[in-house]
Amino acid sequence: MPLVRIDLAKSSSPQLRRAVSETVYEAMTQIANVPEHDKFQIVTLHDEDQLIYPAQGYLGVSYTPAIIFIHVTWVAGRSLDVKKAFYQKIADDLHAKAGVRKEDVFIVLSDTQREDWSFGGGLMQYAPK
Amino acid sequence: MPLVRIDLAKSSSPQLRRAVSETVYEAMTQIANVPEHDKFQIVTLHDEDQLIYPAQGYLGVSYTPAIIFIHVTWVAGRSLDVKKAFYQKIADDLHAKAGVRKEDVFIVLSDTQREDWSFGGGLMQYAPK
Amino acid sequence: MPLVRIDLAKSSSPQLRRAVSETVYEAMTQIANVPEHDKFQIVTLHDEDQLIYPAQGYLGVSYTPAIIFIHVTWVAGRSLDVKKAFYQKIADDLHAKAGVRKEDVFIVLSDTQREDWSFGGGLMQYAPK
Repeated sequence: MPLVRIDLAKSSSPQLRRAVSETVYEAMTQIANVPEHDKFQIVTLHDEDQLIYPAQGYLGVSYTPAIIFIHVTWVAGRSLDVKKAFYQKIADDLHAKAGVRKEDVFIVLSDTQREDWSFGGGLMQYAPK
Repeated sequence: MPLVRIDLAKSSSPQLRRAVSETVYEAMTQIANVPEHDKFQIVTLHDEDQLIYPAQGYLGVSYTPAIIFIHVTWVAGRSLDVKKAFYQKIADDLHAKAGVRKEDVFIVLSDTQREDWSFGGGLMQYAPK
Repeated sequence: MPLVRIDLAKSSSPQLRRAVSETVYEAMTQIANVPEHDKFQIVTLHDEDQLIYPAQGYLGVSYTPAIIFIHVTWVAGRSLDVKKAFYQKIADDLHAKAGVRKEDVFIVLSDTQREDWSFGGGLMQYAPK
């Protein structure tokens, strides 16, 4: 049910893009109670001047043109602790697996309701009982 | 007022893209109480490896590289029945008009408030009375 | 904390794109209480047939292929008056600085909670106290 928009640089390698995709999916299923195979993601590549971040950094975090924007749309209800662990795992794993600077991992979460999803076939698979 | 993001494959035909655009608009106006001419859509095309879905399928639905992601941002308030009919009409019509596999039609809805929209001119056209 | 998606035509000039980026950032910091340096934006360029608007206009507003979609995701809480001033400033400034038709400035706001943001490093920088 999450739909994840991943926006990153055209200069990123296909290997990195796969690592981002896999890492986000693993963090979801291992930490955020997302079911197995619930993996829907849209990757969009951008020229360097199309991913805009503050040159001076923000809140003590500094960024490079390798910044990765991860925008998760999912059903509301994850706890504060789950969200914290979710952020940390994605940054840690991307660093460990693909050498990504942790500061370049930007994540935002957008809530929806269960009824706001059709996974295909024209059905409301998560219809309330 | 809805803003619809349509993400699909670069290999899709211009005819298919127009069919998606028209079908979503018609479902909105005919089922979801969206006013005539309220048609704002952003289409983004992707390489095959940039539209990611579970190879094993999900909830009994299987997907192909022709998957179409339809992400609707609109004002909250549609009923469960309207949302169900909206999903079904889009999948049915895309199948009937353009031969789309119904299982490849993925839809998600994101709510906003009426005051969250400016349709141009710097105005808040839906300002609460 | 806002993440701003800016979708506009490939035929737009780099100067215009920079003006949109700067104008939205200035409106946020000067009117909507967004902190300095909190500037995160994703620009995506589109072919003319990928930015879809009603040919007949809507609510008395008419559009051209130079339409600019500005989709702001931020933390809930701005007042009605702030939102009105925010819309107006963006349209006015884009017209004054870059000659943009005010009617071609389309803005939508999506709310989130403070805990829904990680600005890098795997941290929840806006964690509730």
